[in-house]
Amino acid sequence: MDRFFMSENSLKNTLYVTIFGTHTRAGKAFDITLIIAIICSLLVLVLDSIPSVSAQWSKELKFLEYTFTGLFTIEYILRLYCSPKPIAYAKSFYGIVDLLAILPTYLVLFFPSASFMGVIRAIRVMRIFRILKLVRYLQESNILLRSLLMAKRKIFIFFTSVAIMVTIFGSLIFVIEGPENGFTSIPISIYWAIVTITTVGYGDLAPQTGLGKAIASLTMLMGYSILAVPTGIFAAELHQEMQSHKVLVKCPNCSQNGHDSDAMYCKHCGSQLADPEKRVVPGEA
Amino acid sequence: MDRFFMSENSLKNTLYVTIFGTHTRAGKAFDITLIIAIICSLLVLVLDSIPSVSAQWSKELKFLEYTFTGLFTIEYILRLYCSPKPIAYAKSFYGIVDLLAILPTYLVLFFPSASFMGVIRAIRVMRIFRILKLVRYLQESNILLRSLLMAKRKIFIFFTSVAIMVTIFGSLIFVIEGPENGFTSIPISIYWAIVTITTVGYGDLAPQTGLGKAIASLTMLMGYSILAVPTGIFAAELHQEMQSHKVLVKCPNCSQNGHDSDAMYCKHCGSQLADPEKRVVPGEA
Amino acid sequence: MDRFFMSENSLKNTLYVTIFGTHTRAGKAFDITLIIAIICSLLVLVLDSIPSVSAQWSKELKFLEYTFTGLFTIEYILRLYCSPKPIAYAKSFYGIVDLLAILPTYLVLFFPSASFMGVIRAIRVMRIFRILKLVRYLQESNILLRSLLMAKRKIFIFFTSVAIMVTIFGSLIFVIEGPENGFTSIPISIYWAIVTITTVGYGDLAPQTGLGKAIASLTMLMGYSILAVPTGIFAAELHQEMQSHKVLVKCPNCSQNGHDSDAMYCKHCGSQLADPEKRVVPGEA
Amino acid sequence: MDRFFMSENSLKNTLYVTIFGTHTRAGKAFDITLIIAIICSLLVLVLDSIPSVSAQWSKELKFLEYTFTGLFTIEYILRLYCSPKPIAYAKSFYGIVDLLAILPTYLVLFFPSASFMGVIRAIRVMRIFRILKLVRYLQESNILLRSLLMAKRKIFIFFTSVAIMVTIFGSLIFVIEGPENGFTSIPISIYWAIVTITTVGYGDLAPQTGLGKAIASLTMLMGYSILAVPTGIFAAELHQEMQSHKVLVKCPNCSQNGHDSDAMYCKHCGSQLADPEKRVVPGEA
Repeated sequence: MDRFFMSENSLKNTLYVTIFGTHTRAGKAFDITLIIAIICSLLVLVLDSIPSVSAQWSKELKFLEYTFTGLFTIEYILRLYCSPKPIAYAKSFYGIVDLLAILPTYLVLFFPSASFMGVIRAIRVMRIFRILKLVRYLQESNILLRSLLMAKRKIFIFFTSVAIMVTIFGSLIFVIEGPENGFTSIPISIYWAIVTITTVGYGDLAPQTGLGKAIASLTMLMGYSILAVPTGIFAAELHQEMQSHKVLVKCPNCSQNGHDSDAMYCKHCGSQLADPEKRVVPGEA
Repeated sequence: MDRFFMSENSLKNTLYVTIFGTHTRAGKAFDITLIIAIICSLLVLVLDSIPSVSAQWSKELKFLEYTFTGLFTIEYILRLYCSPKPIAYAKSFYGIVDLLAILPTYLVLFFPSASFMGVIRAIRVMRIFRILKLVRYLQESNILLRSLLMAKRKIFIFFTSVAIMVTIFGSLIFVIEGPENGFTSIPISIYWAIVTITTVGYGDLAPQTGLGKAIASLTMLMGYSILAVPTGIFAAELHQEMQSHKVLVKCPNCSQNGHDSDAMYCKHCGSQLADPEKRVVPGEA
Repeated sequence: MDRFFMSENSLKNTLYVTIFGTHTRAGKAFDITLIIAIICSLLVLVLDSIPSVSAQWSKELKFLEYTFTGLFTIEYILRLYCSPKPIAYAKSFYGIVDLLAILPTYLVLFFPSASFMGVIRAIRVMRIFRILKLVRYLQESNILLRSLLMAKRKIFIFFTSVAIMVTIFGSLIFVIEGPENGFTSIPISIYWAIVTITTVGYGDLAPQTGLGKAIASLTMLMGYSILAVPTGIFAAELHQEMQSHKVLVKCPNCSQNGHDSDAMYCKHCGSQLADPEKRVVPGEA
Repeated sequence: MDRFFMSENSLKNTLYVTIFGTHTRAGKAFDITLIIAIICSLLVLVLDSIPSVSAQWSKELKFLEYTFTGLFTIEYILRLYCSPKPIAYAKSFYGIVDLLAILPTYLVLFFPSASFMGVIRAIRVMRIFRILKLVRYLQESNILLRSLLMAKRKIFIFFTSVAIMVTIFGSLIFVIEGPENGFTSIPISIYWAIVTITTVGYGDLAPQTGLGKAIASLTMLMGYSILAVPTGIFAAELHQEMQSHKVLVKCPNCSQNGHDSDAMYCKHCGSQLADPEKRVVPGEA
């Protein structure tokens, strides 16, 4: 690449590497500063929601909130400025998250009645994902995500089955228990079925009649058993994903693979393998 | 097959391919229309159960309900008409589901006192299964179902053990806590044991005495641990099922597949397989 | 064996084969009769515990209870009579279960004040285990039991860790919440910790203070995560147990194993394997 | 080693082998005595927290507590005395646990107002870990720990994701339900989200509005599904860890083990291994 940028381009480039990159010293410092700022601004948000705290420290919290919003606004403008494709960035998932993280404060400033919108700022927490993704956990979360993606059809079938079961059990309990026991409508009864099948069990709605208790028992036992399905799917996919990384080490002599990550000699023909230290084995890096 | 049907047979055949089939353009359009109609009719059912909504929109909801029932009735008659074996269809699982999806509306029409039966219409939700099964998730749900079937004996043993444990713990807590703490009979106490062992824990029944709490703790810990059993069974079966599908290596001689990744000879006919290193291993592609 | 028994021995032997055995026609009929009798006697016990039922059908239920106890007593005496080692049988696990299944009825007969003991008869449910074990699920439950036994040290470590965690969290919450919020003693607080860590969550005891809620959150998240441990242990052991059955098929030519249950030719050298139909592959029988 | 110690060193050495070691007869006796003393002192602590018991047996419990503290103090001094590196021991994890196990009793003696500190003595329960670790479960707990360590990055990503989800759902429910339904602040709402996502479900806080119930249902279903993630991670890691320990085939040349069951050449030095068919495969023995 051309190292001789014009002064403006050079500034843009330095900013880009610092803000979007992670491998330079400045980039790492920027990421760490940002993660601290995000967590602090979340703490301000949380403290502001506690009545006793917000009554006493109202001014200070407001000041801190405006400071953080100001900083994030500057960051957002800089990202737009130094990005080679500002519109693509603004439209991307993280571009929208970045905007939603600052917008509510301004809205509340101009329309005080929209104060409930302030909580949308909690979306700031999602910005942590970006930093996590960039830094060093990339590999591991890729394995997890790939396992989930591989299993996405199985998971879809699982959730459709849960939805169908929940509709049937919810309707059943609605007929059996009825409004006099709190099951006032089918949506409420489906909510009860979800609370029961996921084994949460708040207890705000519980069957009172004998038949209702029998149906509830069946719902619980089904919920308890089908918990095995997503776990089994994920465990099996993850295992396969981890296994398939084993296949990557090939013997230069007999060309067979399936060697362990610490193997130095081919288990099939006994000839020497590549140096384990220099192999790229995912999950070890 | 004979392409020259009589006009009636030709109509029958076109209907059959459209209604029961899924591969033609018309068949796909029919399936999508049906799935939307089913979900809409379920929404009507759910809205009708909410007192405030049903009070205001009673007429409109009733009209929609009759419309959907009418449509499903026509569909049911067409299915009977175009099916090559109408009686076999009517007796099949989905034939009965299709009938139960329309019958209650007519029953309520003639016997208004049987209004509680209307909820049986919720069984319409099961019709979604058929469409799911037909379209493209066939392979995935087959793997899930085969894993469950392979493990069905283990699952039977598991549920028998749970039933025995629940009976013993329910009887124990009935003696220890007694009617004065809400455990008024053994069935109620068994219901409590199920609520506890599945970790649902409504809290409508909870032990009050020290000994009762000790027994409850034991029940919880057992429930917590035996959750591992169905998950383990399912994960192990699913893993094996997926393994056997993993390398779709076809034998060049007998064209059968399901060979291990390190197999050099066909396990079915003994002829040599393709070089293991040149096979495509899924998960790497 | 000598077929010419004396008349008494011959009777003993026939009885032994019928009562303890499972492979003869008479043995199977006896097992099925017994399982029905056990379930009926349990139903009587359950119905007798429901106040409204026992008030109305008191006499009939008492009569049925005496009939079943009489039958089980005769069965117990016959078992003692025909068993080659009566004392060993009486001392065995199932011998004691059989005795406990009949004793309480007699005790209540002679000491009416000991009526609470009647529930010990619920132990009859354990007799079902014996029959299950004998009939045809032997193989499957052996695999499950062997997996549990293989993992017994890991499970012991797991439960010790849970016990230690529960003691620490229970003591912590006792200090933080104290008697004014219902945590009146350490045993009660440990009970709360068990309710929380197993994710049962009755809600009869819940932290009220902020710090208490923080500790409770930590307890929940730990409970939620460590649930992975027994499941992982059991799934891994079961998988290995199922895998190790694969090793049993050996190639007669190259003596290598690890063939699938449907393999007809050795995957290593291509020579023919034993007929799959005649191999004893566990889990397929 | 030099067997001719001076009398003091000889005493030190004997003490060291007895107190820190586990392989001698005296060492085992010491460990068993210690484990009994720890459990008894915990029982005293627990009994002392029950109001009715502590009111009646106050003196006796206090006397026992002082006795155990005295014994543990002597043990602590002996450990410091005989350890070759007393300061390293005092600073080690178990050194601190040993100190915290005795300190509170003395503090309460001198500052009676600090009686709440007495519960720190519950930390004594952690001393059981040391003994467990020393005796014979070393191997098994190592496999469990190594599986957890191998998966520590995946677990970190999992917990970060849970933290982010809990913040978002907590903030959402805070806006939707608000203080009038008990969700008085964001921390309280995050506590509710944790209670829900871990499927504990106390029921002290439950959504009242329709929208709140919809959000709660989503939270439950997510919590229910992501439970699959840690289980899957742990099961897959444990399986791999157990696989690598499965066949303890030692290489006759370099004496290293950990070879696959089908390995014919040592993966460390390339020399030929024993015939795979003659190796002992665990789980079959």
